[in-house]
Parts: sequence; structure tokens; C-alpha cells
Amino acid sequence: MALKVYADRLSQPSRAVLIFCKVNGIAFEEVKVALSKFEHLTPEFKEINPMVKVPVIVDGRFKLFESHAILIYLSCAFPGVADHWYPSDLFRRAKIHSVLDWHHSNLRSGAAPLIFNTVLAPLFGRPLNPQVAAEAEKILFKSLSKIESFWLKGNGKFLLGGFKPSIADLSLVCEIMQLELLDEKDRSRILGPHLKVREWVENTRNATNPHFDEFHKVLLKLKETLQKQRSLKLTSKI
Amino acid sequence: MALKVYADRLSQPSRAVLIFCKVNGIAFEEVKVALSKFEHLTPEFKEINPMVKVPVIVDGRFKLFESHAILIYLSCAFPGVADHWYPSDLFRRAKIHSVLDWHHSNLRSGAAPLIFNTVLAPLFGRPLNPQVAAEAEKILFKSLSKIESFWLKGNGKFLLGGFKPSIADLSLVCEIMQLELLDEKDRSRILGPHLKVREWVENTRNATNPHFDEFHKVLLKLKETLQKQRSLKLTSKI
Repeated sequence: MALKVYADRLSQPSRAVLIFCKVNGIAFEEVKVALSKFEHLTPEFKEINPMVKVPVIVDGRFKLFESHAILIYLSCAFPGVADHWYPSDLFRRAKIHSVLDWHHSNLRSGAAPLIFNTVLAPLFGRPLNPQVAAEAEKILFKSLSKIESFWLKGNGKFLLGGFKPSIADLSLVCEIMQLELLDEKDRSRILGPHLKVREWVENTRNATNPHFDEFHKVLLKLKETLQKQRSLKLTSKI
Repeated sequence: MALKVYADRLSQPSRAVLIFCKVNGIAFEEVKVALSKFEHLTPEFKEINPMVKVPVIVDGRFKLFESHAILIYLSCAFPGVADHWYPSDLFRRAKIHSVLDWHHSNLRSGAAPLIFNTVLAPLFGRPLNPQVAAEAEKILFKSLSKIESFWLKGNGKFLLGGFKPSIADLSLVCEIMQLELLDEKDRSRILGPHLKVREWVENTRNATNPHFDEFHKVLLKLKETLQKQRSLKLTSKI
């Protein structure tokens, strides 16, 4: 039985896992779980993941959630995965764990609540919270500056001076791609000053294409819809 | 040159790393960094960790921050560490990564802002924020319930049904120990309903003593000071 990946392509950690599988030729079945339709709250999905989150993988009798843990598991369980994704070298591996842990309490803690409280909340029947969004933007901005000045230092094209991407590049870049959903003005204010970050996003995209673009289509379609809604609102105000 | 551990014993991830080293007979030099004296903001410490956080380890020429990454590194770099701390079995290891990732966006996201905004903020010259504390308590309570119903299911004394502790037990239990700083009434409201959690904290303490108690002394001393301050305030009100 092939590996099953329970995912919503609008969720950034879901996309990281899906792209990783495709890039590494891991055969899998994608089981779509639409968060905006609350499909993660059904009794069937709660059997798969009692934490009601995506992504989750089911590999035979083995179930696993939390995208970083999944990316590490896939790197180790599938022998075809190239070493640069999750290096066997003790020191490089330790640094990748460090980036992934940092991601949780920095980049994700900024980006996720910002996008939710600026764009996504209404899709889930929740109100937008501009105060939370403003706090989140500060964390996000600081995180992007740290990526630029610390994680991206060195001559490599990827995090930690790497010349090939690791699971940390893929995970963090998918997080940053979520900013596509913001109004262009907001997105420019946040990403504009971070040239190295923008180059690194592009490097990661190029290193994982055509799959990167394929799995970001849904996000970019939602971006388009949101832009149309914004112009309509603007027109109706004039 | 022995391993250096830059730590503040009042910081829960610092304690996890210090206790881990002691329990596993890893020789190290503890370099105290008092967060309440802003010693993490000195230019010297910024050289060690530009993220201005503890704990950090320096092992020869190798520097590493983020406590989970450090615990994993130490488990792999020091051959004397028993397998149960960070099992070599692919599936058990993957589950431990999953708990550690979950810790970031659940237990820690509840406990840390709750303690900061109920107790610690004034020590850092910051105001308490009861609204943030209330939101954090909800996340913490939900996280403790999930530990009880999901991570602690099975017959073992530890997370994931284990019969011996892993780095995840140590990390999460040190987080929960931070609740000692709360007023007794608040602590009972939060921990009271979670009997299995309380038993597991005790199991982890027993499995790592006398070091667990040794490294928690400073926390318990601060608890005592805070209790005295509270009684004085109460007396002055009568």
C-alpha cells in the first residue's frame, strides 16, 4: 500500500511534504482534507489525527503528524532521498534541527497569525483581528531579517550556506509563500527590504520545480480571487 | 576543552539540557547567563548566539542553540547516552520528533506566555498582560488535556507509552515545572484536573533525580519569594 499524505494545498506545511515527496520520487496518494470545509474535524479524520491538523502521513500501519517530523521520517525511510535534504553528518544535521525549531517560534509565529488575521479568518467563519495581525507582522519582519543576516549568511544559495536545499529550506520557503495571499502593498512592505530572502525563495522554487509551482497553484488561485474581491471593494467605494 | 552550556536555570529549556548532561554523565561547564540581568543582550553573548536566547552549547568549534536540537545532538554525539533518550529505531524516533514539534506550538505556546504575563514580566521591567495570560491559559489547558488523552496513553510511565524517559519527557516536564511559579490557586486550577500529567512529571523527576531537584532549586526558591510577596500584599490589604 502506497504512502498516504493527508493534506490541504492551502496549508504551507502540507505543501512542503507534498513537494518533498514529488521531488524525491516517493510514490504517494494525496488525500485532500479541505480545512475551510472543516474536513479536519470529521470523526474519520480524528481517527487519523486526534490533533485535527494537516499534514499527516500514513505509511502502512504507521501514522505521523507534524510536518518537520514527517520530512525527517521520509528522508530516513526512503533510501532514494539525496543526503542534502537531511544530511547524515552530525553537525549539519544538528544545524538543520536548529533552523526547524527556530521556525516554530519565529517565522511561523509571525507569518501564520498574520495571514489568518489579515486574510483567511473569514473563510473559517472567524473575524479578522487587526491587533493580533500587527503583533504578528512585527515577529515576521524580525524573523525575515534574522533569516537574511544569520541563516542565509555564507556563499551558498540556501540556508546554512548550503549549495543544495534541505528540508529546512523547503519548510521555511513554503511558509513565506503564504504571504502571496496578502494585499500587494502589505507584501511589498514586508518582503521588499529582504532581497536575500526573495532570492532564496526563488532558488528553492527553481530547485524543486515543476513540483513547487504545481503545488502552489491553489494558493495563487486564491490570491487572484482575493485580489479581485479587493478591487471590487475599492471600486464600490469610489 | 569540555562542552560549555550557556544557561539560566530559571529557563525551562536550559534546565532540560543541564539535567540531560548530568543524568548522562556528560562533562560540561555551566556558563550562567542571567536573563533577568539582561546578560543575554551583551555583545559577548551575541557572539555566542545572535538570537540572544538560552540555552546554547559550544562543543569545541561547534555552536548550537534551540534546546530540542541540542538534546538530539548530545544524544548522538556522546556515545554513553542510553538509547531510550533518543531511540535509533526509525518509528520511535519519528514519534519523538512529532512530540517535540507539537511542544512548540502547543504546550510551550500556552505555558511560556502564561507564566510571563502572570509572574515574570516585572522581573524584566515589562507590564503583566492579563488578556494574553488568559488566552495562553486556554492553550495550556488544552495542551495538558492532549498530553493526558493522547501522548500519555498506553501502559508506560512516560510519553508514547515508554517505560524509560526520552528527551521529549524531559523537555515537556521542565516546561510544566515552570507552573510552580504561579499562585497555588491558579496552579491547582490548571494542573488539578490532569492526574496523569502530574504522575508523569513525578515519574520523570524520579528517573532523573538527584539532578532534577538540583537544577530546579533556583525555580523553587523564586516560587518561595513570590509566595512571600503575595502574602505581604494580602496582609497589607487586610
